[in-house]
Amino acid sequence: MWSDFVLVSPEQIAFAKKLADASAAVIRPYYRSGLTIDDKSDASPVTQADREAELAMRALINAERPQDGIIGEEFGAERDDADWVWVLDPVDGTKAFITGRPLFVTLIGLLYRGVPVLGVVNQPIANERWIGVVGQGCTLNDQAVTVSQITELSRARIGTTGPQYFAPASREAFMQFQQGGRFTVYGGDGYQYALVATGGLDVVIEEGLKLHDFAAVAPVVIAAGGIMTDWQGEPLTRTSSGRVIAAATPEVYQAALNIMSKV
Amino acid sequence: MWSDFVLVSPEQIAFAKKLADASAAVIRPYYRSGLTIDDKSDASPVTQADREAELAMRALINAERPQDGIIGEEFGAERDDADWVWVLDPVDGTKAFITGRPLFVTLIGLLYRGVPVLGVVNQPIANERWIGVVGQGCTLNDQAVTVSQITELSRARIGTTGPQYFAPASREAFMQFQQGGRFTVYGGDGYQYALVATGGLDVVIEEGLKLHDFAAVAPVVIAAGGIMTDWQGEPLTRTSSGRVIAAATPEVYQAALNIMSKV
Repeated sequence: MWSDFVLVSPEQIAFAKKLADASAAVIRPYYRSGLTIDDKSDASPVTQADREAELAMRALINAERPQDGIIGEEFGAERDDADWVWVLDPVDGTKAFITGRPLFVTLIGLLYRGVPVLGVVNQPIANERWIGVVGQGCTLNDQAVTVSQITELSRARIGTTGPQYFAPASREAFMQFQQGGRFTVYGGDGYQYALVATGGLDVVIEEGLKLHDFAAVAPVVIAAGGIMTDWQGEPLTRTSSGRVIAAATPEVYQAALNIMSKV
Repeated sequence: MWSDFVLVSPEQIAFAKKLADASAAVIRPYYRSGLTIDDKSDASPVTQADREAELAMRALINAERPQDGIIGEEFGAERDDADWVWVLDPVDGTKAFITGRPLFVTLIGLLYRGVPVLGVVNQPIANERWIGVVGQGCTLNDQAVTVSQITELSRARIGTTGPQYFAPASREAFMQFQQGGRFTVYGGDGYQYALVATGGLDVVIEEGLKLHDFAAVAPVVIAAGGIMTDWQGEPLTRTSSGRVIAAATPEVYQAALNIMSKV
């Protein structure tokens, strides 16, 4: 699927970091601002952070890489028929942001002909930055990270954002699956996949993800040595369903696939 | 309940900070160490962090405040009939620790004749330290913080560590309650109460807490202007049941009490 000749360049990686820096500078002042006030307006801090960070990143792409496409959570698509398309989600984990937990992340993915090949997961408050490039490894703050070596499902740490995000049949399958694991933790959104890439979680199963939710995290998980596909075992692409499994090892992955593929 | 003449002294507050510093220095090197390895031993990083941090704090208390009592999660009670008793939970949020989320906290409470009067919630990775002293206010890293002003339940951000921690009848009541709120976030343990004190959550309801889970967080919530009691509306003391409500405003508190007091 990822031909050897499609190599993400050092310039592209440097540019991805530049996008992360730009978004972080916009987002930081909004974090925990106005928490105590009941802001019902469209100009709430999280909305402003989301919109302004995406505009900052889009401006950089348009100025410095005008041939690349953009798909952003807030402002949609432009030039998305280009070979290289940036997929942006400035604030993934809205509830983490508006409750004041430093677990929301900025997601920056790069597609080559519809396939995610580079991902940045950036936490601008704790200053944690994961960068995964398919075929080139994954780093957290420039240190190499890898998935865990756990192969027994009974030892696996399982994550999902919340049982309420599954459709009923999916939830039933997930609940069955998670009974076989060591424990399940809820919450985390995109941060969970960064934890898979760092060995902190062994498997994450979710449903209903959009392209901007998975485009950045799939290269992070895969470059760290993990597996991330849809519930049928197909690689994630621009047109995937949004049902995903991310796993540290083939054994834990297969255990998840056995159950979720039947939904 | 808290007589005016029982004033926590500046020396006691300074000593509480010293305990937090000592525990943080012990815990930090263990964070995210050995994440990728399946460590089934009794010497796993989280267990070592927990035990060694408590021993460090106990040694300080015994050396510098030998008249005070101690109740620790790991090593039990000594001199716990003293007027002043320190209650220690070195790593609250074990799952956060072993999945690599910077949301676990060190909880340091001080009881006067069984009533929590001072609390420290310390996050040693993100370097966040809440200190609440009943009657003297609450700070996060030396800046005053307060609870939110949200009075409508329909606007309230609700937290609990997980629905699985409730007994069935309690879970039913909680699920009924949370349908009236803005949204519910799971996960967080002691960190949730620090978020109430900072305006990020409006109400937290839990069951099955131990003294070391609530002794430190109750003063933090109360000193920030919130309310924290058991499900019958009684103040939390050493002998409380472990069923707790923490809320930002009297209105949201009463809405929670109306439902939970009937369980």
